[in-house]
Amino acid sequence: MIKVVANGGITSAKGFRVSAVSADIKGNANNKLDLALLLSDTPAVTSSLFTKNLIKAAPIIYTEEILRKSNLISAILVNSNNANACTGDAGYQACQVIAEHISTELGMTADKIFLSSTGVIGVALPVDKILSKSKELVSNLSYQSGNQFASAIMTTDTFSKEYAVTVKDISGNEYVIGGCTKGAGMIAPSLATMLTFITTDADIPRNLLDRALKQSVSSSFNCITVDGEMSTNDTVMIMSNGSSGIKINDTNIDQFIDALEELCLKLALMIVSDAEGGTKLVTIDIKGAKSDQDAKLVAYKIATSPLVKTMFAGSDPNWGRLLSSAGAAGADFDPNNIDIFFEDIHYVAKSTLINPDLEATVHKIMLRDSYKIIIDLHSGTGSSRYYTSDLTEEYIRINSDYRS
Amino acid sequence: MIKVVANGGITSAKGFRVSAVSADIKGNANNKLDLALLLSDTPAVTSSLFTKNLIKAAPIIYTEEILRKSNLISAILVNSNNANACTGDAGYQACQVIAEHISTELGMTADKIFLSSTGVIGVALPVDKILSKSKELVSNLSYQSGNQFASAIMTTDTFSKEYAVTVKDISGNEYVIGGCTKGAGMIAPSLATMLTFITTDADIPRNLLDRALKQSVSSSFNCITVDGEMSTNDTVMIMSNGSSGIKINDTNIDQFIDALEELCLKLALMIVSDAEGGTKLVTIDIKGAKSDQDAKLVAYKIATSPLVKTMFAGSDPNWGRLLSSAGAAGADFDPNNIDIFFEDIHYVAKSTLINPDLEATVHKIMLRDSYKIIIDLHSGTGSSRYYTSDLTEEYIRINSDYRS
Repeated sequence: MIKVVANGGITSAKGFRVSAVSADIKGNANNKLDLALLLSDTPAVTSSLFTKNLIKAAPIIYTEEILRKSNLISAILVNSNNANACTGDAGYQACQVIAEHISTELGMTADKIFLSSTGVIGVALPVDKILSKSKELVSNLSYQSGNQFASAIMTTDTFSKEYAVTVKDISGNEYVIGGCTKGAGMIAPSLATMLTFITTDADIPRNLLDRALKQSVSSSFNCITVDGEMSTNDTVMIMSNGSSGIKINDTNIDQFIDALEELCLKLALMIVSDAEGGTKLVTIDIKGAKSDQDAKLVAYKIATSPLVKTMFAGSDPNWGRLLSSAGAAGADFDPNNIDIFFEDIHYVAKSTLINPDLEATVHKIMLRDSYKIIIDLHSGTGSSRYYTSDLTEEYIRINSDYRS
Repeated sequence: MIKVVANGGITSAKGFRVSAVSADIKGNANNKLDLALLLSDTPAVTSSLFTKNLIKAAPIIYTEEILRKSNLISAILVNSNNANACTGDAGYQACQVIAEHISTELGMTADKIFLSSTGVIGVALPVDKILSKSKELVSNLSYQSGNQFASAIMTTDTFSKEYAVTVKDISGNEYVIGGCTKGAGMIAPSLATMLTFITTDADIPRNLLDRALKQSVSSSFNCITVDGEMSTNDTVMIMSNGSSGIKINDTNIDQFIDALEELCLKLALMIVSDAEGGTKLVTIDIKGAKSDQDAKLVAYKIATSPLVKTMFAGSDPNWGRLLSSAGAAGADFDPNNIDIFFEDIHYVAKSTLINPDLEATVHKIMLRDSYKIIIDLHSGTGSSRYYTSDLTEEYIRINSDYRS
């Protein structure tokens, strides 16, 4: 099998149609697309990962219940501009009413509908506005409108985020995995909702789909965000409808995972690139830790430190902040034997500066849109990678506006 | 005994003299006071708490060794504008040379000198500049110059931070506890160095002094910062020289602790008030948690969330961010039964808004320089309090300047 990467998105795989409308969910009549529907031609095997936040939005509570009964899903209805979180019983009832309504319109039972929301917390979802758009959504369904779906789920995103990977064998048989994501506020990186919807026309059983999704998310979305630090609405889900006729089993699952990992990483990095106010993508590679878990503690601490992220904004090789941040991570290592590389420039050895004259070179690297920092703790074989952005004044402007 | 609060500082207690000079440690000839000396008339019983960061500055490593041999200290030498951290063996040797030199000048042994530094990490300490000022420091020592000491330890602080408490009995016998602190970059609140020096002329044995300091720090400095999240140089220390003649023992230790707690809290809140770019002091009170530890997790998560802190900057009653942040804290509570109060206004009950009409009232409270948010988790009797500031664009400006 060979892999072909293509521009594409959530309708690149066969048998998936979408539509999107402006339902004025925010109530400011800005005509932004804010309500989208996806329909699979046949019920699709579905795997999902949801936020671990104790406070879960109503659509997540509702959809998790649906999925406990059956994981065959036919449609997704998603809105932006309102998270339907912290909305009490009314929020949950809104989900029931909406799923009932849209499923009737689609001629199926309500338990085939996957609901998702993103936007402001604690404001009642305008149910009637959503119901009033259901006919239009169903009649507009198209095999070509993937980008409209990707646009409709955006909140503070400055660009829509889509990608697709095609996997072909020598006889020309192929299947596609495509998807879209939204998310932009990655400073902490807590609390900024991330929604990811992925479709594939490969035919893959539930257990393998679960395994593939978990593995792919752990090397992508979980390297820009962190378990237990999520928003009330975070969701990653994949639907497999088998329209390509190609079956995935133990013999070809690795190729599938490989393609799905690539897709997820591409989408995750688009989120970092679109970090609120961010201008740079910085990769933090930790190696030589006592364990992978220790490496992850250090990588996460550095990737989320405001002092480190402001130093990235200023392109300042203030390496002491990297060391101090590593030392505060709660990991165990020899504090006197740390190496730091900026790309291929060896800047710090044994926890001290090798040569002050290299500062100008390192500063130049830090002026790039994207670069890598490698930190070797020389205390074992554990490693971890995180992707982060710089922290700029623009982030504050976006998030301190009254009811941003 | 009655307690009298007074303006004062590190020389308010009897028998302590200080001096401060500009040694041009940063090398930009700005004449800022950056080197200070404190001398006790007699060797003083000393108790200290140091950073738990794995990466410790050289003066901390050096001073901890001194204190392991004897806790009788006569003098403190502290510099700003250079942390002497991540400076390798040379950094440690610098401490030895400086302590040797200043102790000779003072006519005592080097093991009576407590060293402390704050400033940029990873830059060699200009030892000669410090040595060249030792004669001037010693000859300028004065019982009245507490404020100069407080000014010399400042880095990004916008004001010096001093306080003193006098404890009197009915016969007019009295002792004083006074001190000063520095620290301003409290966003994370990781990595911003906090130095606190406290003196008292009460006569208090080491075990009681240790207990008093630990208890006072846990309700003050540890509620604005957090164990294991500290900078390379964080230090809180207290010296007791007994000059007042009043002995502290089991019968009057509570009064001493009470006074020391008040002093520490006052100094800690000055740090929050001076948060880099911050304009507000917000108190986060968590109650009804399953345990104090759970309450602390929630209070800390909320107090350090960039989304919450930007919402404070905008005076936006975006209470969903408080809930979402609480839910991501890793504590266990009923997500559907949370109350939120802004001062005495009951705004959220059972995790949903009580009355949207209260928004204007809550917004007005949030416009104040200082206010309290109370969150009741209704899951037990655990409680915790944190003090935090808002996060403004000014923070970014301060920290993203090239080599701030």
